[in-house]
Amino acid sequence: MDWITVIGLVAGTLTTGCFIPQVIKIIKDKSAKEVSLLMFLIIACGDFLWLIYGFYISSLPVILANAVSFVLICLIIALKVKYK
Amino acid sequence: MDWITVIGLVAGTLTTGCFIPQVIKIIKDKSAKEVSLLMFLIIACGDFLWLIYGFYISSLPVILANAVSFVLICLIIALKVKYK
Repeated sequence: MDWITVIGLVAGTLTTGCFIPQVIKIIKDKSAKEVSLLMFLIIACGDFLWLIYGFYISSLPVILANAVSFVLICLIIALKVKYK
Repeated sequence: MDWITVIGLVAGTLTTGCFIPQVIKIIKDKSAKEVSLLMFLIIACGDFLWLIYGFYISSLPVILANAVSFVLICLIIALKVKYK
């Protein structure tokens, strides 16, 4: 793996990792009242388009980061609907 | 401009745009007590690495999205420090 892919993967880990505390907080609080459904729906659409873009340009970091983000965002949306 | 660049730019607009409501909210409230400084510092580092990655793979959407995000995140951090 070349160094620029490693930089991309570290970048992806940092920007994707920022959703994990939100998931943990919702599960712990069993509440997601103050979480904006619209914001996460918009991010989900954006992530999905990044995924298409990543596959097209064959960028492993773009694909991985956005695939993991997309799963986390869908989890947040599902928890929001469950605990609303 | 080819269609895949357009998809990337739309993706970037959606995932970058999600920071704008946060900037507006801090300016309006003149408060950023509940905004996590650590989270935004981590995202800033991630965005910076994405920027390096984007330049290296010559991806306009990755460069533009992360340049704008980086500016918005730095603004949020500056406002957080100002209004802490």
